[in-house]
Amino acid sequence: MPHITLNSDAPGIRGLFMFRPETARPLNELVEVLLRQESTLSRGERELIAAYVSALNECRYCFSSHAAYAAAQLPEGMALVEQVRADLGAAPVSEKLRALLAIAAAVQQSGQKVSEQEIAAARETGATDLEIHDTVLIAAAFCMFNRYVDGLATIAPDDPASYTARAQRIVSDGYLALLAESQRQT
Amino acid sequence: MPHITLNSDAPGIRGLFMFRPETARPLNELVEVLLRQESTLSRGERELIAAYVSALNECRYCFSSHAAYAAAQLPEGMALVEQVRADLGAAPVSEKLRALLAIAAAVQQSGQKVSEQEIAAARETGATDLEIHDTVLIAAAFCMFNRYVDGLATIAPDDPASYTARAQRIVSDGYLALLAESQRQT
Repeated sequence: MPHITLNSDAPGIRGLFMFRPETARPLNELVEVLLRQESTLSRGERELIAAYVSALNECRYCFSSHAAYAAAQLPEGMALVEQVRADLGAAPVSEKLRALLAIAAAVQQSGQKVSEQEIAAARETGATDLEIHDTVLIAAAFCMFNRYVDGLATIAPDDPASYTARAQRIVSDGYLALLAESQRQT
Repeated sequence: MPHITLNSDAPGIRGLFMFRPETARPLNELVEVLLRQESTLSRGERELIAAYVSALNECRYCFSSHAAYAAAQLPEGMALVEQVRADLGAAPVSEKLRALLAIAAAVQQSGQKVSEQEIAAARETGATDLEIHDTVLIAAAFCMFNRYVDGLATIAPDDPASYTARAQRIVSDGYLALLAESQRQT
């Protein structure tokens, strides 16, 4: 049961968005830019960074959500998400994405953990300043979202179908459209 | 030296805001709502939560900034910020604020660390659902900002005057006005 009384039975962060629309708006604008706007990292790759950090933070709702969003936008699907989660070093991703995911894992621990060596390694694989910036901010943002969702003890549905159904809507319409839709319903 | 090449010599998160205006906008909208919009927690109290979490994350730029913003808006000034940082249990704050700061400290560790007992203790001091919600989201947001600032190794000025000067502008005009001003300069 959530720590606070929400005004809906929407699960996870969706219930928090309906409870506090004033903060829901900038939070959704942030993920829309980071995970969906034009970038040299694909949407699937960026959702994979979000899912990986959420796994490291053991946030079941956020991991299940962004794993489904990543799987829906990666040719390799959920198998790749699970391989990255299980063993980043051995997962069949590009060397650039592996280096960026390693930076994300450092950020998950703390900002100070990101080393010159990890940055240099990412650069050697061709990662740009903007890709490094966005990776750090995606990882940092999911350290926020994970704490927000679990710090208020929101409910994570058990049924995987609830995440895959939402993934189709995120892929087709994006975060802001779904937020607007949910707010029209209240 | 920052891990990436910025397009200005602005310190801390300000340099990141100038590098990536697309994400600066929602990030500043978020803090404007959380730290300055109408609330039953004073602006000084909310900046104190931000400063306390930044201290726990050992983020010098964010702590120095939000300590200055808190001090400028609390009758007890910087002395109270330092007392809270040194020993929350003994600091002369209201029991409600102490309970909310304890929740923020749990969030800083992880979302799962927030206990039913801490929530119940906050409620006993009169904390509302909205105050608990906003405390969790402020703490979570600063776990993001701290990682963003330090994960990219931005520069934190040594001179305290640089933070107090900015505090006056934050108090009078707010985060979004200062962001708009800095973006006009580029």
